[in-house]
Amino acid sequence: MKAIVKAEPAAGARLIDVPEPRPRRDEVVVRVEAVSLCGTDLHVYNWDAWSAGRVRPPVVMGHEWAGEVVEIGPDVRGLRIGDTVSGESHAICGHCLQCRTGQGHVCRETRIFGVDTDGCFARFFAVPEASVLRNDPSVPASIACMQDPLGNAVHAVQSGEIAGRSVAILGCGPIGLFAVAVCRALGSGRIFATDASPYRLDLARRVGADTTWNVGETDVDAAIADATRGEGVDVVLEMSGAVPAVVQAMRIARPGGRVSLMGIPSRPVELDIAGDVIFKGLSVQGVVGRRLYDTWITMQSLLATGRLDIEPIRTHRMPFASYASGFELMRAGNCGKVVLDME
Amino acid sequence: MKAIVKAEPAAGARLIDVPEPRPRRDEVVVRVEAVSLCGTDLHVYNWDAWSAGRVRPPVVMGHEWAGEVVEIGPDVRGLRIGDTVSGESHAICGHCLQCRTGQGHVCRETRIFGVDTDGCFARFFAVPEASVLRNDPSVPASIACMQDPLGNAVHAVQSGEIAGRSVAILGCGPIGLFAVAVCRALGSGRIFATDASPYRLDLARRVGADTTWNVGETDVDAAIADATRGEGVDVVLEMSGAVPAVVQAMRIARPGGRVSLMGIPSRPVELDIAGDVIFKGLSVQGVVGRRLYDTWITMQSLLATGRLDIEPIRTHRMPFASYASGFELMRAGNCGKVVLDME
Amino acid sequence: MKAIVKAEPAAGARLIDVPEPRPRRDEVVVRVEAVSLCGTDLHVYNWDAWSAGRVRPPVVMGHEWAGEVVEIGPDVRGLRIGDTVSGESHAICGHCLQCRTGQGHVCRETRIFGVDTDGCFARFFAVPEASVLRNDPSVPASIACMQDPLGNAVHAVQSGEIAGRSVAILGCGPIGLFAVAVCRALGSGRIFATDASPYRLDLARRVGADTTWNVGETDVDAAIADATRGEGVDVVLEMSGAVPAVVQAMRIARPGGRVSLMGIPSRPVELDIAGDVIFKGLSVQGVVGRRLYDTWITMQSLLATGRLDIEPIRTHRMPFASYASGFELMRAGNCGKVVLDME
Amino acid sequence: MKAIVKAEPAAGARLIDVPEPRPRRDEVVVRVEAVSLCGTDLHVYNWDAWSAGRVRPPVVMGHEWAGEVVEIGPDVRGLRIGDTVSGESHAICGHCLQCRTGQGHVCRETRIFGVDTDGCFARFFAVPEASVLRNDPSVPASIACMQDPLGNAVHAVQSGEIAGRSVAILGCGPIGLFAVAVCRALGSGRIFATDASPYRLDLARRVGADTTWNVGETDVDAAIADATRGEGVDVVLEMSGAVPAVVQAMRIARPGGRVSLMGIPSRPVELDIAGDVIFKGLSVQGVVGRRLYDTWITMQSLLATGRLDIEPIRTHRMPFASYASGFELMRAGNCGKVVLDME
Repeated sequence: MKAIVKAEPAAGARLIDVPEPRPRRDEVVVRVEAVSLCGTDLHVYNWDAWSAGRVRPPVVMGHEWAGEVVEIGPDVRGLRIGDTVSGESHAICGHCLQCRTGQGHVCRETRIFGVDTDGCFARFFAVPEASVLRNDPSVPASIACMQDPLGNAVHAVQSGEIAGRSVAILGCGPIGLFAVAVCRALGSGRIFATDASPYRLDLARRVGADTTWNVGETDVDAAIADATRGEGVDVVLEMSGAVPAVVQAMRIARPGGRVSLMGIPSRPVELDIAGDVIFKGLSVQGVVGRRLYDTWITMQSLLATGRLDIEPIRTHRMPFASYASGFELMRAGNCGKVVLDME
Repeated sequence: MKAIVKAEPAAGARLIDVPEPRPRRDEVVVRVEAVSLCGTDLHVYNWDAWSAGRVRPPVVMGHEWAGEVVEIGPDVRGLRIGDTVSGESHAICGHCLQCRTGQGHVCRETRIFGVDTDGCFARFFAVPEASVLRNDPSVPASIACMQDPLGNAVHAVQSGEIAGRSVAILGCGPIGLFAVAVCRALGSGRIFATDASPYRLDLARRVGADTTWNVGETDVDAAIADATRGEGVDVVLEMSGAVPAVVQAMRIARPGGRVSLMGIPSRPVELDIAGDVIFKGLSVQGVVGRRLYDTWITMQSLLATGRLDIEPIRTHRMPFASYASGFELMRAGNCGKVVLDME
Repeated sequence: MKAIVKAEPAAGARLIDVPEPRPRRDEVVVRVEAVSLCGTDLHVYNWDAWSAGRVRPPVVMGHEWAGEVVEIGPDVRGLRIGDTVSGESHAICGHCLQCRTGQGHVCRETRIFGVDTDGCFARFFAVPEASVLRNDPSVPASIACMQDPLGNAVHAVQSGEIAGRSVAILGCGPIGLFAVAVCRALGSGRIFATDASPYRLDLARRVGADTTWNVGETDVDAAIADATRGEGVDVVLEMSGAVPAVVQAMRIARPGGRVSLMGIPSRPVELDIAGDVIFKGLSVQGVVGRRLYDTWITMQSLLATGRLDIEPIRTHRMPFASYASGFELMRAGNCGKVVLDME
Repeated sequence: MKAIVKAEPAAGARLIDVPEPRPRRDEVVVRVEAVSLCGTDLHVYNWDAWSAGRVRPPVVMGHEWAGEVVEIGPDVRGLRIGDTVSGESHAICGHCLQCRTGQGHVCRETRIFGVDTDGCFARFFAVPEASVLRNDPSVPASIACMQDPLGNAVHAVQSGEIAGRSVAILGCGPIGLFAVAVCRALGSGRIFATDASPYRLDLARRVGADTTWNVGETDVDAAIADATRGEGVDVVLEMSGAVPAVVQAMRIARPGGRVSLMGIPSRPVELDIAGDVIFKGLSVQGVVGRRLYDTWITMQSLLATGRLDIEPIRTHRMPFASYASGFELMRAGNCGKVVLDME
């Protein structure tokens, strides 16, 4: 079958023929219908320092997918051939403290498909039942494949109360945009979104941001103070990973508010712990991955009922073979999510 | 000034002249712009057994209101003349265990305006600052006056997780209808609503119910089982107070689900505690009043941002002097909320 | 090997030779060191209506155990030969909604060892890794084997806040006694315990009850009112399953309090939902099993650190072969837990 | 009456005669029986930069007290003459967003007794009813007066789950020592405590620390890794305010753990947000003051029932007039809490 493979330890990837996978005892084989490109895929494609230190070519890339179950291992009990499914990108160990107490998203032995083991950028994909979730048949594959990053946003938004709370979303990359849409679907108060890209701020408004500010043009601290009568915002979702934005997140949250950190800063961050965290009684969470599987269950319900519409964030669709163009788009930045359709 | 007064211990009420109130040290006087009629008002109007045992005429009726602050007592610190405001119907003691630990809604010494003390069905209304909340000026008085019962619904919906959860709302009187709208605004999963009135089921669909069933025509247990593949529903909001509906609530909730009870049954209810509550690991809450003031804060934000639209539930508006017609409408049942406008 | 077997569909059990089990791929084999007798075992032993409808002899009885891993299936990853272990009595499916969202204790497909499949009353016991937890080596087997019912108590106590809260424990059978000890270990406020047996009330005082009342001698409603200045108690743990105690639980909880129901009533219970649940804003939970595996993790830590001492509740120890005497003791009621030691 | 007064803007304080206070409408006057010295008092005594910028002499010092109500203002409803009481050191506004939603501990308009307004280091003390809590008569004044700082510790410990969780307490000043005792009373798992003072580490062991490490002698990171099999600790309570300890707190918490920050660092702190907070899915809270009044209610119950014994932390008692010796002791550091008894 055709697959997008990181074939050697160098930039790029190849669309080549590889053997079709067979399921292990606890696995199913899925016929992949649509996949989407993640920032992690771009790191691997670019063969940056992180990838070079972790990935062992050859490996089939990709971990965001939707498809249909076509074969079932003998120990699989909860899935049937014909089920429309997607899956969690992180395979977890299942028996550590974290896995046994609802914190599998920080399992120390997690492995990522398309990074540590073969992924989903292929016609067929073998995946353990434990990582698979059934989609409502009404949700198209080109939407369902984006659930892994959508789940990041759902997890971040749901890391505390959101109903009626004002929220600042710092960074409108795909996960920031998903967060805007999720906040809106869950009845947040006013949504303020920031980014440096007019293209992305426009997208943010389309999916529900009440106010957007270009960080290159607006003093966001002052704007938040003005919009909240000096109180600060109830909730900050830091999605950019920019060091100044992490610092700002602490500053613009109101006393008693919360800051959920998801964007990954590339270096240490100096914080005014006394003034911005302790005296304000702030709640700060590091957010990674998705709650397994609460986040998925909530997300699937929101999509199946139409409460949440993420279609505007899927800005580009192209054939599977055009993956290189997709990665180019991501590098340029004028995109939401890029989806590849299997033909 | 004109006021609707329960003047003597008998059915009915009179629109008569009473002295304008002056604020006590911790009170403000509000010029009332709009009020709405509550089921409790109807009890008092009808002079049923409960009213006869509790109300001491003469008393100005009413506790659902919106207006503007026109006078301020010397100890008031958080309000100004000109503020647009509404208020909580229950005045609480402020120093009991419940009041001091965020459970003021079950304060034992609570007094209800229009029942235990003069209420708001008048041109002017004196009310303690502690019971007053500022409305966003964009919310019209004829909407803002309905926040007290809307808050009942918000409290019930927020008694547990709602995002993405399927929910059955049993009883589509005004609070049930508000609950439908709130579930929708907060991103619940599928919403099933039941009632015996086609008029109210139609309203339920208009404010966001996905499916409605007339309890006189449909086997709701079977319908829920069918709609949830035999699992049961994640959340049940019992809003009818009908004894069979309370029993049904426990039965149709899924294992691990929750049942929030708000409708008041008129007699004891026989429950299968073993099968329906314990073995299912159910969470059951009695819900009364509003969280003071978390519920109000959330509700005001939802109205101010337009996330929640309750206008369709305000089915009737009429002049203040037509209150008797309003009570007639409520008796007949073909209405949502009835609002009286001050002229 | 020797095992206590429900050999035919009739009262009693036999100590007979059965083949030693071999582990399936995901199982370990444990050499059992100590077991304890559960009320469920007594039902099976007595061959009551429930047992007759569910158990299919022959089956090795028992589900409360401690021992050492002696053999490991090829798919087991988190256990090693020599580990000292105990295990959860309920084997759950792992892929239903409940199992995937931290509610495995109400999995619909749960199977109980010693009831639906061979249990632990034997020299060796084969059990899936997913049901096994490592004990701290400092905890003796004759204590560790009681963790399954101890976990019921931990789950009940932790179904809401307990620190500093006054608590009434209705029913001082073994799980009620464990609950007393757990409340004490977790810093509850005053502990009131009730039962009809002076023997058990004495045990309750020994493990930490501040006040005990014999329900045959004391008006418990009046005593609670007296002890709490008419407020009612913060938390009620209903452990008796007696219908009047379930009703009483709702009555003696304070407004805003909680009632956790664990004792199984044998018939429907008539409750004053309006007065006792709704107007009091009560929180009521059905509690069954143990949180998998939060309850186990907490419990094991409490035992390993010595914060929790349950030794006084292990009132009887006897050799494995004396099981019939153990069941007689349970019938008579003058006991806490009965432990059988392997020789 | 005699009072300890910061009489002029300079170091020191004077024991002088001042007029006895009369209650305002919403105040009571308390006859003070015992007070304790807080680090804040020492700052004011020393007249450091913070004090010089905030305190306006003359002001009666002190905010940790216990006594008896001797006079009552006309609007007071929940207290009686003769009640034994203590009180919250922070007087809050009562009508801001934070005050109205259970976050009064971060009210922006808070005023501190003995800093912004006259305090309790005097024979009589006038204090608003809203800041007063009734003590159980069984708790001696020399213990009850320490509840304000004890409440800091209770608040920090209860900022997340504690039952059965391993906990590292960084810094064994009085609040750190209280935290050790509270963790023990609430059934935490293993308690690790660190400090640079052998005197204080000895005290920590006496009130319940399982293991203590002198930061000048032990590599705490390595010791934690060793004690937790490389997992890290479930909970970190940072009580020292030392910058390296704040950094360490993030490092030694396990993935999915929590860090509660209470010690005030004197300068910004550089944190590895990516590695220590986000990828570990950490929960971090700034903790200040006490939950009003949940923390007080819990604390009073723990003291009244004897579940919590803080007497070993009250290392020094002396007559009121010896306050200067008390401040000397605090400067030297070889003490827990210093209590002054009224004669």
